[in-house]
Amino acid sequence: MIDPFVVRLDLEEGILTPLPERVVRRLSDLRGLVYDEELLARELARGDPIIYEVRKLAIPQKQGQLFVNVTFLKAGKIGKEYYFTKGHFHINEKAAEVYLGLRGQGVLLLRRGTDTRVIEMDRGTLIYIPPGWGHRTINVSQETLVFLSVYPADAGHNYERVRSEGMGLRVFATAKGKGYEIVNS
Amino acid sequence: MIDPFVVRLDLEEGILTPLPERVVRRLSDLRGLVYDEELLARELARGDPIIYEVRKLAIPQKQGQLFVNVTFLKAGKIGKEYYFTKGHFHINEKAAEVYLGLRGQGVLLLRRGTDTRVIEMDRGTLIYIPPGWGHRTINVSQETLVFLSVYPADAGHNYERVRSEGMGLRVFATAKGKGYEIVNS
Repeated sequence: MIDPFVVRLDLEEGILTPLPERVVRRLSDLRGLVYDEELLARELARGDPIIYEVRKLAIPQKQGQLFVNVTFLKAGKIGKEYYFTKGHFHINEKAAEVYLGLRGQGVLLLRRGTDTRVIEMDRGTLIYIPPGWGHRTINVSQETLVFLSVYPADAGHNYERVRSEGMGLRVFATAKGKGYEIVNS
Repeated sequence: MIDPFVVRLDLEEGILTPLPERVVRRLSDLRGLVYDEELLARELARGDPIIYEVRKLAIPQKQGQLFVNVTFLKAGKIGKEYYFTKGHFHINEKAAEVYLGLRGQGVLLLRRGTDTRVIEMDRGTLIYIPPGWGHRTINVSQETLVFLSVYPADAGHNYERVRSEGMGLRVFATAKGKGYEIVNS
């Protein structure tokens, strides 16, 4: 049992106060997920920077409870491939998810079987991810992408399925270096 | 089954685009809930204004899905009692709810058995309502109170329990007419 509680969410910057638990993902966490693994290995020889960070309210992991996170996905590329979150399917195939863009410019990739979708994210995009759709977020801008997410606390995360099957699509910088292109991969 | 979808949420005003289904609650919907029922009856003889409106994304009412609403609660009073939402308990006693204040100044009343809580709401307050807590929102300002809410689609609404048991507390304007006071009732 937890008590009702309130925190402050800065609707411009996405900062939660007080600062809750943080889960940090580094470049090395993208091993097995990037387009160019050799390039990734070379970059890792120089360092292992943070790629994204998820700040998570403390909620019991039980059916009916709701996890509430704010994700900060940094701007950057591995070669031409824009930084992205690992992506996952929910283990609980009934569990949906809601995203609310707060800052920056991104792309949400969705996959269900052979069906893929691309949804642009920016401040004020409210996205509904129905049950069964794997999802990954990509930052296609020069600033940090920040979004709020809410999902059933019993959703669970299956990362391995994305690692083995991929998301079907990748997001690259264009040859000109501005904007992005979606590529089957 | 529904497809992934995106709508736009104006993070300043709370407007959803495109405009989704709207549920409108009028003064007459507060019969049996207000402190002064005789005064309510006299006011209803003059008209039945809208008190609040809930804009609801179209989501299947199934376990694992998430309802996403934006509520617009108008400023006003019935005598000294500030306008409020009917309030409800979830029928599904496991179902939590998340509130995010977007605009205005309000109070969230929570009740579980004889335990009551008061949480102030304004822009950027992110409130977690754990399972089992009845909840009602009160607008204590001169402008519309706007907030986003997310909750399990199988939560269900028990309004009758609030009608029969009350929320334990009421929110009145102070004698000076500014600010508010919380009263056992």
